[in-house]
Parts: sequence; C-alpha cells; structure tokens
Amino acid sequence: MLYYAEPVSRLIEELSKLPGIGPKTAQRLAFFLLRQKRSDAVALARAIVDAHDKTLYCSCCMNLSDSDPCRFCQDERRDRSILCVVEDPRDVVAIEKTRDYHGLYHVLHGSLSPMEGIGPEQLKVKELMARLSSPALQEVILASNPTVEGEATSAYLARLIKPMGLKVTRIAHGLPVGGDLEYADQVTLVRALEGRREL
Amino acid sequence: MLYYAEPVSRLIEELSKLPGIGPKTAQRLAFFLLRQKRSDAVALARAIVDAHDKTLYCSCCMNLSDSDPCRFCQDERRDRSILCVVEDPRDVVAIEKTRDYHGLYHVLHGSLSPMEGIGPEQLKVKELMARLSSPALQEVILASNPTVEGEATSAYLARLIKPMGLKVTRIAHGLPVGGDLEYADQVTLVRALEGRREL
Repeated sequence: MLYYAEPVSRLIEELSKLPGIGPKTAQRLAFFLLRQKRSDAVALARAIVDAHDKTLYCSCCMNLSDSDPCRFCQDERRDRSILCVVEDPRDVVAIEKTRDYHGLYHVLHGSLSPMEGIGPEQLKVKELMARLSSPALQEVILASNPTVEGEATSAYLARLIKPMGLKVTRIAHGLPVGGDLEYADQVTLVRALEGRREL
Repeated sequence: MLYYAEPVSRLIEELSKLPGIGPKTAQRLAFFLLRQKRSDAVALARAIVDAHDKTLYCSCCMNLSDSDPCRFCQDERRDRSILCVVEDPRDVVAIEKTRDYHGLYHVLHGSLSPMEGIGPEQLKVKELMARLSSPALQEVILASNPTVEGEATSAYLARLIKPMGLKVTRIAHGLPVGGDLEYADQVTLVRALEGRREL
C-alpha cells in the first residue's frame, strides 16, 4: 500500500538508501525538498549528477579531482621530495586544512583487510610503487588511519618501500591535543608513552 | 580555498542545505554518492526533480497527490459524512496507517501562528469552508497537532464551523499508549484527567 503519491514515495525510498538516513529522516528530507523552490531542488539533483560526471581520479596521485593531473600534482610550488600516503580523498583535505604540509599525496582508496578480501591489488599500491622512482623523492610519510587495518597497511608498505633506500615515516600516535589523559583508551596511552620525546 | 574538486564542493554545499545535515554529514553523504554507481546517483537526482514535477496539491482536499482530485477524494468507498482536518500531508499518512479512519481529509498546510505572521489566509481555510456545504457531510474532526498553534487553529475552526450546524470534534489528548505516567508532562496529564471516561 502506497501511503504517499508515487513520486514522493520514490523520493523517500531513494533518500533512505543514504547512509545514516532512516525512513523518518528520509520522509522529513523529502518534504523539505518538496517545500523548496523547484530551482533549489534541481540544483541539488544537478550537483549529484555533476559530482559523478565531472570528477575523476588523478592518474598520478589517485586523488579525486576535476582535472588530470590534479592541482596538487600540477602545482610546481609543492615539495616534490615528500609523499604522504593516505587511505581516502577526505584525508587529503584533513591534512590540507592544517596548512602545514606542502608535499605531494597518494591516495590508496582503502586499507588492507583480508577479512573483507581487500589485498594490495584492490588498493592503489601499484600506482604508488610507480611513483617512487621519481628522482626528487626522499621521504614517504605513511598516514593511513591508526586502526588495525591502517597499521597493517603501513607496515606492509614500509616493508615494500624501505629496501628502495627511501626514508619511510609513520605519523605519530598519542593523546589528541586538548584530550584528557584520564579518558584516553589504553592503546592510545601505550602509544603516547612509547612515542615520548625528550624535552 | 577549495579543498575539494569543485563539483564535489558544490555537492557538499547543496547537501548541507538539507535540514539536520551538517558539513560533516554532507561530506560523508557526498562521498557515499560518489562511490555509488552513476545509475544510482541519477535515480536519486531524478526522484528529487520528479517529486517536484509530478506532484501537485489536490484542488479539493489540498493533500499532496499525483492526481487531481487525489485518490482519497476520488474513492467512492470513503465515508463522505466525515472530514478530518490536519495540518500536514504527513498527518494524512499517519492516520491512514491506523487503517481505522475511512472518511475524507482536508490539509491546512500549517497552523495559525500570529508570531510568524500565519493567519487563516495563509492556511487552506477558505478551501475547507467551501467543502462544508456538501450535503453528505455530518462531522468535522479537528486533528491539528496538540501544540499551542494547533490548539488555536482548532479553536478558530470550531468557532467558524459550529454555527453551520455540523458536528465538530477534536481528537483526544492524553497519555500515549505504552507511555509511563511517571514521565508524562504535566499538560498531558491534566488533559488525560480532564478526558477521563467512565468504565
């Protein structure tokens, strides 16, 4: 039994497919969109299709981009001696927002997870290895997530890259700035102690 | 500074305009949509535009519909002696889901709110009054929300409709089924006591 007019039901159904959007939220969003001006609804619809049609993966760093090579790979002012390896395009944005890193990036598009059948062939590892022969390159920063899969990915890549004579580093783990030692989990605390530095 | 490729930034921006969707959620949704098959993204975009283009308001009951008159107003099996007045098309769905009401509906599209400048002219009151001359009609159920605005709307409509010799009723207020008396708010409890029935 359809309680709503068919186009409304279909919109609610499509919105429900989004992650974290349950039927009630989908209904609320659908009615919000119906109350909007047609031009606003069309702008959202257009943006969804455009994001698919007008973005691609940079053939060099595998980051999401609207040009190939992407603006990071094109930018002559970026430090070509450092390469930061991340799991996801969002990680590139997180690091860029610090305004503290000016090297290049490489996006793996995931982390090793044998349980889910994700091995090195499913990640952009081959593409990473091809970039390591660049004469300017000196250091590879492994910035995969501090999760079991991320650690495994970094360990795997370190073993692969070290023999090539490049400096391989891993981002530091420890207490987040502003965090409370009392509430830190044990693993983080162990990492914070291990990574202690002399002042 | 654009951290994302322009089409991705625009999608995140458009998604952020939705109610309850902050920048982080918008980003997560955008990347989810980018990972989907193009056909799935297009289906959502299509549904958004279709919901606008293929729905209209029934010229009789003002409910959201894909036909005019809507299927409730068209349906000869519905009881034309009762008319249930609600604030929103979603309220029609909520009542339909009970499978307990078989009369007609009228959607006001809001409630009286002088503070927000919403008077009877902003609601579908004129359209409601035009329907009350129907010879079959005997009872008008006022089912606006149990809020200050909803109560004011019902009181206003009752004053308007009663002199026409129709039975005017208001849906009952009280403790929700499965609710806990201890946790009920005072206003609800007062209403529950006022509305007590002899067993």
